Amino acid sequence: MGDAGGVTATDLTETERSTLHRKKERGSHERDLVDAILDEGLVAHVALTDDRGPLVLPMVYARVDDRLYLHGALANHLLRTATGGAPVCVEVTLIDGLVLARSAFHHSVNYRSVVLFGEAVLVDDLDEKCAAMVALVDHLVAGRSGGTRLPTDAELRKTAVVRVPIGEGSAKVRTGPPIDDDEDLELDVWAGVVPVATTFGEPEPDSGRPVGLGVPHHVAALTPR
Amino acid sequence: MGDAGGVTATDLTETERSTLHRKKERGSHERDLVDAILDEGLVAHVALTDDRGPLVLPMVYARVDDRLYLHGALANHLLRTATGGAPVCVEVTLIDGLVLARSAFHHSVNYRSVVLFGEAVLVDDLDEKCAAMVALVDHLVAGRSGGTRLPTDAELRKTAVVRVPIGEGSAKVRTGPPIDDDEDLELDVWAGVVPVATTFGEPEPDSGRPVGLGVPHHVAALTPR
Repeated sequence: MGDAGGVTATDLTETERSTLHRKKERGSHERDLVDAILDEGLVAHVALTDDRGPLVLPMVYARVDDRLYLHGALANHLLRTATGGAPVCVEVTLIDGLVLARSAFHHSVNYRSVVLFGEAVLVDDLDEKCAAMVALVDHLVAGRSGGTRLPTDAELRKTAVVRVPIGEGSAKVRTGPPIDDDEDLELDVWAGVVPVATTFGEPEPDSGRPVGLGVPHHVAALTPR
Repeated sequence: MGDAGGVTATDLTETERSTLHRKKERGSHERDLVDAILDEGLVAHVALTDDRGPLVLPMVYARVDDRLYLHGALANHLLRTATGGAPVCVEVTLIDGLVLARSAFHHSVNYRSVVLFGEAVLVDDLDEKCAAMVALVDHLVAGRSGGTRLPTDAELRKTAVVRVPIGEGSAKVRTGPPIDDDEDLELDVWAGVVPVATTFGEPEPDSGRPVGLGVPHHVAALTPR
């Protein structure tokens, strides 16, 4: 990790607020890492400030190139509170492991997270909105949108979709075993990492029509993330 | 779901900002539901507003009665930016299923989430801080703290722990199959729910000393959450 791996034009901008102050060796502004985390996550945690203070809500999202599209209740909230762009902070975190140390103090979590700062803009253009909806569906299940009925203009008009640029922010990663103090290494305590993954169970077909459709390949092909 | 299930003294306070405006039938202020969601989650998403705008970061946490204890980088940030209590918003979300509809528009996610509003206060008292650290470890793995070396006063002094009251906020839940438009029900598209869970893999013992410790029961007993 870290910032030594070569900066390209698409890497995230390091600003005062996106500069990593703590455990810098775990931080990065590399776009490949940022994109991989964003593409693997299922839900983003989106914060804004309104006249009553900070608010954070979960939202489904999708990345399309340098843009993040958000969909959910907060989009409607943004619609009510922001006319132009509203400053938001978007966080996506993947939990990779429980880090169990010999001492309570050194317990931790292995994770990969991205924090983005930007202005959220409501998407008005119906073509962009339709592309965003397709991306949102395919972000849940790769290849899902292909067989589904695509949104009508009426559906798009009653859906709030918000766009946030992927520009300013950072990624942070912890990997590896617990780091205990030397004097604790002889303690009679099991230590190690328990891997954590988001896994998918047996698909449950909707009752009703049409009868007898098999589980499609794009659903059967889901792998842990 | 909903608010018809009886309000007790410990239910969450419904204020202007915690009143549910959208899809009220999915919302609740019942403490049993709120506590169950908080106890099942692994990471909280904590938002605050500083002079640069909204910020949200992931933090490990634990619930102890009516208090939520937070631990992580943000605690240090709060330490820098807030002398007294800082208004925060804490969100915990569990993803239970991918809801795959016949139309792209009706795709959704089954989830259970809690949003809390409150003032974050840094915990100074070493006894409370120690109890919080123990709760944080046991929140990761029930029963874990028992065998571990407990924190020393020196460790507690260099750890930032933040307390947020569980008082104002709400829970929100979506369950069940996709809800397609009637005219889409005959479409030749598989629809249904794919269950989602957070699962734990084979424990990976830390290399080194002591050799030959078996995986303890509290680790082997981990179940999906």
